[in-house]
Amino acid sequence: MIPVEELQRSAGAVSTGSDTSALPSKAMNGKTSNGHPPKATNGATNTNWRRRSKYRHVEAYHSRVRHSSLSREPNVTASFLGFRNLMVIVLVAMNLRLIIENFMKYGVLICIRCHDYRKQDVVLGSALFALVPFHLYVSYLIELAAAKQAKRIVGQKKKDISTEVNEREQRIFKNTWWISAFFHCLNTLLSLGITSFVVYFYVHHPGIGTLCELQALIVSFKICSYAFTNRDLREAMLNPSVESALPEIYASCPYPNNITLGNLIYFWLAPTLVYQPVYPRSSHIRWSFVAKRLFEFFCLAVFIWLLSAQYAAPVLRNSIDKIAVMDIASILERVMKLSTISLIIWLAGFFALFQALLNALAEVMRFGDREFYTDWWNSSSLGMYWRSWNRPVYLFMKRHVYSPLVGRGWSPLAASTVVFTLSAVLHEVLVGIPTHNLIGVAFAGMMFQLPLIILTAPLDKIQDPSGKVIGNSVFWISFCLVGQPLGALLYFFAWQAKYGTVSRM
Amino acid sequence: MIPVEELQRSAGAVSTGSDTSALPSKAMNGKTSNGHPPKATNGATNTNWRRRSKYRHVEAYHSRVRHSSLSREPNVTASFLGFRNLMVIVLVAMNLRLIIENFMKYGVLICIRCHDYRKQDVVLGSALFALVPFHLYVSYLIELAAAKQAKRIVGQKKKDISTEVNEREQRIFKNTWWISAFFHCLNTLLSLGITSFVVYFYVHHPGIGTLCELQALIVSFKICSYAFTNRDLREAMLNPSVESALPEIYASCPYPNNITLGNLIYFWLAPTLVYQPVYPRSSHIRWSFVAKRLFEFFCLAVFIWLLSAQYAAPVLRNSIDKIAVMDIASILERVMKLSTISLIIWLAGFFALFQALLNALAEVMRFGDREFYTDWWNSSSLGMYWRSWNRPVYLFMKRHVYSPLVGRGWSPLAASTVVFTLSAVLHEVLVGIPTHNLIGVAFAGMMFQLPLIILTAPLDKIQDPSGKVIGNSVFWISFCLVGQPLGALLYFFAWQAKYGTVSRM
Repeated sequence: MIPVEELQRSAGAVSTGSDTSALPSKAMNGKTSNGHPPKATNGATNTNWRRRSKYRHVEAYHSRVRHSSLSREPNVTASFLGFRNLMVIVLVAMNLRLIIENFMKYGVLICIRCHDYRKQDVVLGSALFALVPFHLYVSYLIELAAAKQAKRIVGQKKKDISTEVNEREQRIFKNTWWISAFFHCLNTLLSLGITSFVVYFYVHHPGIGTLCELQALIVSFKICSYAFTNRDLREAMLNPSVESALPEIYASCPYPNNITLGNLIYFWLAPTLVYQPVYPRSSHIRWSFVAKRLFEFFCLAVFIWLLSAQYAAPVLRNSIDKIAVMDIASILERVMKLSTISLIIWLAGFFALFQALLNALAEVMRFGDREFYTDWWNSSSLGMYWRSWNRPVYLFMKRHVYSPLVGRGWSPLAASTVVFTLSAVLHEVLVGIPTHNLIGVAFAGMMFQLPLIILTAPLDKIQDPSGKVIGNSVFWISFCLVGQPLGALLYFFAWQAKYGTVSRM
Repeated sequence: MIPVEELQRSAGAVSTGSDTSALPSKAMNGKTSNGHPPKATNGATNTNWRRRSKYRHVEAYHSRVRHSSLSREPNVTASFLGFRNLMVIVLVAMNLRLIIENFMKYGVLICIRCHDYRKQDVVLGSALFALVPFHLYVSYLIELAAAKQAKRIVGQKKKDISTEVNEREQRIFKNTWWISAFFHCLNTLLSLGITSFVVYFYVHHPGIGTLCELQALIVSFKICSYAFTNRDLREAMLNPSVESALPEIYASCPYPNNITLGNLIYFWLAPTLVYQPVYPRSSHIRWSFVAKRLFEFFCLAVFIWLLSAQYAAPVLRNSIDKIAVMDIASILERVMKLSTISLIIWLAGFFALFQALLNALAEVMRFGDREFYTDWWNSSSLGMYWRSWNRPVYLFMKRHVYSPLVGRGWSPLAASTVVFTLSAVLHEVLVGIPTHNLIGVAFAGMMFQLPLIILTAPLDKIQDPSGKVIGNSVFWISFCLVGQPLGALLYFFAWQAKYGTVSRM
């Protein structure tokens, strides 16, 4: 290991094939010595000198005080992007391993041909799905009648101006409202009630039942919103005052010009639960966008079906034995195994419904406001979550339940309690009726959200980033890793207790 | 659900306990309607008007075109911090579940009292550990002799100035270098050879063997660096020229003042493999820092021991049967299960050694340059990884092997090949000798790094962030998830084949 200087100075120059292009790449950045460039001696050029100096064994690699990246010294900040990539890779690897393990244990459990749909289920389900929207038509008829009466009153008002007549008209108006409100209530209860009755007693398959129940709930929401909004529009028309100035966007379709079948059908199909005579519209339909969203929806639906059949079903089946034994460690292990699967299914379901399907629907309807959710995954409290993840339902509750109550003087807490009670009842209906087990777990789960929201609200206020991380973690753990899997397990066991089988595979 | 206006206008004002403080909290941010504030009428104040307007059922919640957060529209960027938190939580939950599953399957495998250390191992290991540093003392003596001769030559030079005498002195100097080089080589080979021989044939426990081998390797590195550096310092003293200007930091201890026992002992204990007469020093010892680092080291050592005994050992034992059956799916599943455990053990070992132990040592020695590693976890290519994760060895290789070779005209590729070959040999020695199986896997693994580095080098050049993510992922997968677990498995099987047992628990 004789340095170049030595070779050149003594015993003549041995040809070393010195290659100035063989300087090390920038990647191996050596530290230059602190010598100054010399005058050329011995025929050596400045380049040669620098090259030789750089490669001597005396290079001072330790020349200043430095700290390790992971030391918690001031001014030492390290980037951990690499570890984020590693986390993703490890998650994927761990789940791949579980997939292989599952395959080794159970083989392929997915069976495309075998299905659990009885003919009765399909017939009844289709009938319900097709007929329930007629309740919307009934509410349209009710509103049409009310609008006609309102127009008549307005016409009269233009002729009469006495206060007596005005008061009489107010009374008529009030009665009209009570009558139409009565019919609207009846309509809503019938739409929900008929479907629930048929699903509970006659539709066996929970999937079909859930679809019908969901459709009925959505129609009921829309009926309510249609009724309330038109009621206020009617009042604004009858008693125009600066106090009841309407939003600008409604100006292009003043009441009662909005009571048309076309307007109703648009509302029925639009991805929203709050009725407006006019919605912001997008300019044109991008069919490629629609195709992509539908494709996403389809892929995710298949994915969810695969996961349920291949991974969730065995875990649920195995857990029955453990529950019988009441072995705490085993139960905990089962819940944790189920929690990952249910988390993935739920995330996929969220994306499939709120991102893919609703966006496709909105694009086809040229519906402009696509904010079906905000960034609920960043929620640092449960309250923020409930305001962000399902905007259609949240907006309905706020516009037609919460805000009117608060406007009447109720406290926010009391109004929120009403909202969550209503929500709890509807969740129980949505989950318990298709599974034919109104065990009240969904109801309790929703009611329990209020105390949890109050508990976690302080976390929202913390400005410190680590405080937000804590709040976000509390949200994920309580909601997705503990709450949902437990709920799913309980409804599954209730089904088991009633029917004795899980799947026919 | 009668709005406030209706109550107040008709049938007299029913006391609603209207409470202006019951306005909804800012969290439920309603959108204000687009009406203008009116002049006060009916005794209603502006506040009341705004309150009533806000709570009417006609609120226009859909008033502008908006896109969903997850849509890939321009100007829509979502923050995914919540999902990062979720990933961490899911990883923790999945591993907790595996811990519970492991506990249910195997019970507690950790046994504090039972150990595998034979008395002979402990005795020999301690002896080696204590005696090997004497080779450093031998190298010190060699250098002392060489320094004395050099001083004599310098003294003579000051009297004689004839070129003849200069040339004769050059020859003497060259011979001195060859003689001292010969003795240094002999010293190094003996230090490494004696330890390797004793460990291979007489020390059974691989842990003790590894510690001894590591100590011998470190001492050998230090001997080489001491020899090379002093040789160049000696030359610089004998032939001072602007070409051989030394780094400024050495000025406080010019050759041969650095050839002292104190200087050597400092080098022996300092956390570096490259010798310098002078190092950057920190001002004082922070004993709390030392205590914290040693505590971290101890905790991590215990953690690694726990993981190996409780999790790695069963997986390794189970994999033996699978290898026998040659079931590909099972082997793959075993490797993947082992990969997570070995990844955690390796990360913990890295932190324990490079962050905790070396920092503690550096603090006690008041050694200033603590850059024992850079952010290798962000490496977007294998080349970057090898330059970042083990800086002491990297600096040694660069200063004493790579740079001199390139300075002699070798191409970077050829010089790198030499570095990796040397590294491969030493890795094989480090792994194969304590496990008494020189099966060549470590050697092959290191040699294989070069083609991999060349393969992955283009990924480094990509400026695009996603390119860096790809490169980083390739690094993690090839190195940590595939490379190491496979290597560990193979050495484990070799041990099994030789000795037939894994642990005595």
